[in-house]
Amino acid sequence: MNTEFSLSSLGEFGLIDRIQSRFPQPVAPELGIGDDAALLTPSPGMQLVVSTDLLAEGVHFERSFGPLRLLGRKALAVNLSDLAAMGARPRWFFLSLAIPVGFPLDEIEALLDGVAEQATAHGVLLAGGDTCGSRSGLVISVTIMGEQRPELLLRRSGARTGDEVWVSGTLGDSALGLQLLLKNRPVSGCNETEYVVNRHLDPTPRCGLGQALAKAGLASAMIDISDGLLADLGHICEQSGCGAEIRLAQLPRSPQFQRLVASAPLSLWQLAAAGGEDYELCFTASADRRAAIQELAKTAGIPATVVGKVTDSGRVVAYLPDGSIFQPSSAGYTHF
Amino acid sequence: MNTEFSLSSLGEFGLIDRIQSRFPQPVAPELGIGDDAALLTPSPGMQLVVSTDLLAEGVHFERSFGPLRLLGRKALAVNLSDLAAMGARPRWFFLSLAIPVGFPLDEIEALLDGVAEQATAHGVLLAGGDTCGSRSGLVISVTIMGEQRPELLLRRSGARTGDEVWVSGTLGDSALGLQLLLKNRPVSGCNETEYVVNRHLDPTPRCGLGQALAKAGLASAMIDISDGLLADLGHICEQSGCGAEIRLAQLPRSPQFQRLVASAPLSLWQLAAAGGEDYELCFTASADRRAAIQELAKTAGIPATVVGKVTDSGRVVAYLPDGSIFQPSSAGYTHF
Repeated sequence: MNTEFSLSSLGEFGLIDRIQSRFPQPVAPELGIGDDAALLTPSPGMQLVVSTDLLAEGVHFERSFGPLRLLGRKALAVNLSDLAAMGARPRWFFLSLAIPVGFPLDEIEALLDGVAEQATAHGVLLAGGDTCGSRSGLVISVTIMGEQRPELLLRRSGARTGDEVWVSGTLGDSALGLQLLLKNRPVSGCNETEYVVNRHLDPTPRCGLGQALAKAGLASAMIDISDGLLADLGHICEQSGCGAEIRLAQLPRSPQFQRLVASAPLSLWQLAAAGGEDYELCFTASADRRAAIQELAKTAGIPATVVGKVTDSGRVVAYLPDGSIFQPSSAGYTHF
Repeated sequence: MNTEFSLSSLGEFGLIDRIQSRFPQPVAPELGIGDDAALLTPSPGMQLVVSTDLLAEGVHFERSFGPLRLLGRKALAVNLSDLAAMGARPRWFFLSLAIPVGFPLDEIEALLDGVAEQATAHGVLLAGGDTCGSRSGLVISVTIMGEQRPELLLRRSGARTGDEVWVSGTLGDSALGLQLLLKNRPVSGCNETEYVVNRHLDPTPRCGLGQALAKAGLASAMIDISDGLLADLGHICEQSGCGAEIRLAQLPRSPQFQRLVASAPLSLWQLAAAGGEDYELCFTASADRRAAIQELAKTAGIPATVVGKVTDSGRVVAYLPDGSIFQPSSAGYTHF
């Protein structure tokens, strides 16, 4: 980290040089940063898989929530999660930053540290981007490109009546972590709080599991959970022309989540089923694949849990433990 | 245009539906909006060419400068210009918008009108994107993808000592238009002012000329002029390990530009050689290609002019008509 220079003394091209120097670049005959465009070659027989996400200060994050390094990790994680949901292997990404005037250079360095960590962890190369000033908040735009054999890709449209609905990991941690951050609850010193806050600030994209499911041909449809399980499963149902039944009691919850909601007046099911930003995978699969999926998840080191089944009802219905129907209080974050 | 609904009543998914409905989508087996990622297949034998640009309110544009329709056209134009500079054919683009709270829906519709016009004009398909709220200004992020046979692509690195330096169109109009906008000079009623302001608000990417030069194998290096001729030619020289000499008297200037600078105390050469946002092409070519290039430019309907030559000096030197060396007053827009 270098705090000798301010961003204004470094300038736009100085910043670009600094960004370029800390990311390994695509090797010849490919071409990354330093021309009008990047030149990239998907592997033979592979389909290109592309996604993009914009993160805006005051909307997706507050700088006060945690170190900028984690924000850098998350900016790439949410994009990696989209590729994971297709079962694609990440290859390249483009990073654009709109930076407020007077933004400290060491915070930009910390942000880039986080992006670089995540990029290294997933073997994805920075191939280009753009930087500019911003009149107010920090805006981060990432476009990610990956690849997969076309016949292996997992779309949202493949779910069939009778399939089981699965989720990876545990749900609700991130939404609970965000609630605690918004309430300014002390984070340090409480292991449970630190855990759920970290799940919000530093989510783990399920790239390995997503690719393994795609390669094994075990799932019929897949999506990542960014708007909450019920909303995102709703997208699978829409695209597949089906419905789903969820048993909330079966939703996987972390011990930390369980202890925190037991001690506070929080809406357990709202957080776990509709809270959002889990970045876990939700997928559907024929019931006869259950053992194979459990085996594959064990190998990947990520729990996978059946939480319901696909129906022909045309809508997603979630049942509370007492058998009554759960009504989420909102369909997720409202942007406008 | 529909003003019955506000953006807040439409919501994020309503806005995405509205965006999707007005852009033709990639056809099967490709997949555009509506899944976690877009699936795209470059044509056989083609290399993928990717660029991204971020436009931020208060930095790249003011909403008061002109209709949002033109801003939509420009957001795509500046990205198309990057592909033109590689000689690539545009195929797909991704559009991300961070929209201020309370932004009028009809202005978003106007913005999308402009993007759609430009997309249709250049045969490029919207394959995905992201929308979110913004704490203050409007931010537009576009990632564009095109393709070209790898051996035809025009990099910045191919200029050789003795090559001639060419530019397309006329220079300085856009920078002069911006100066007039910043000074709140009346636009309507004066043809010259309208012309240069329009060149700033609605630049024309030179896609046809760029591809024709690439296919004909006539140029040795190419870049688009976004930061001003001298700065951008500097990038060619850096990447090619050479220098250049420019004769300012040879810079192509529009009659409108000439009349306006004659009647006002404006720095003619500063605008034409270092003003920026021309979105014309600057390219280098062996002197024996001169006739062929003039013929090709004539066919493309865009003037092309020799403005200097490539040297081995390692720097770009611009000569005023009296033979003295021109010193630009700044190296372009300073972002931070």
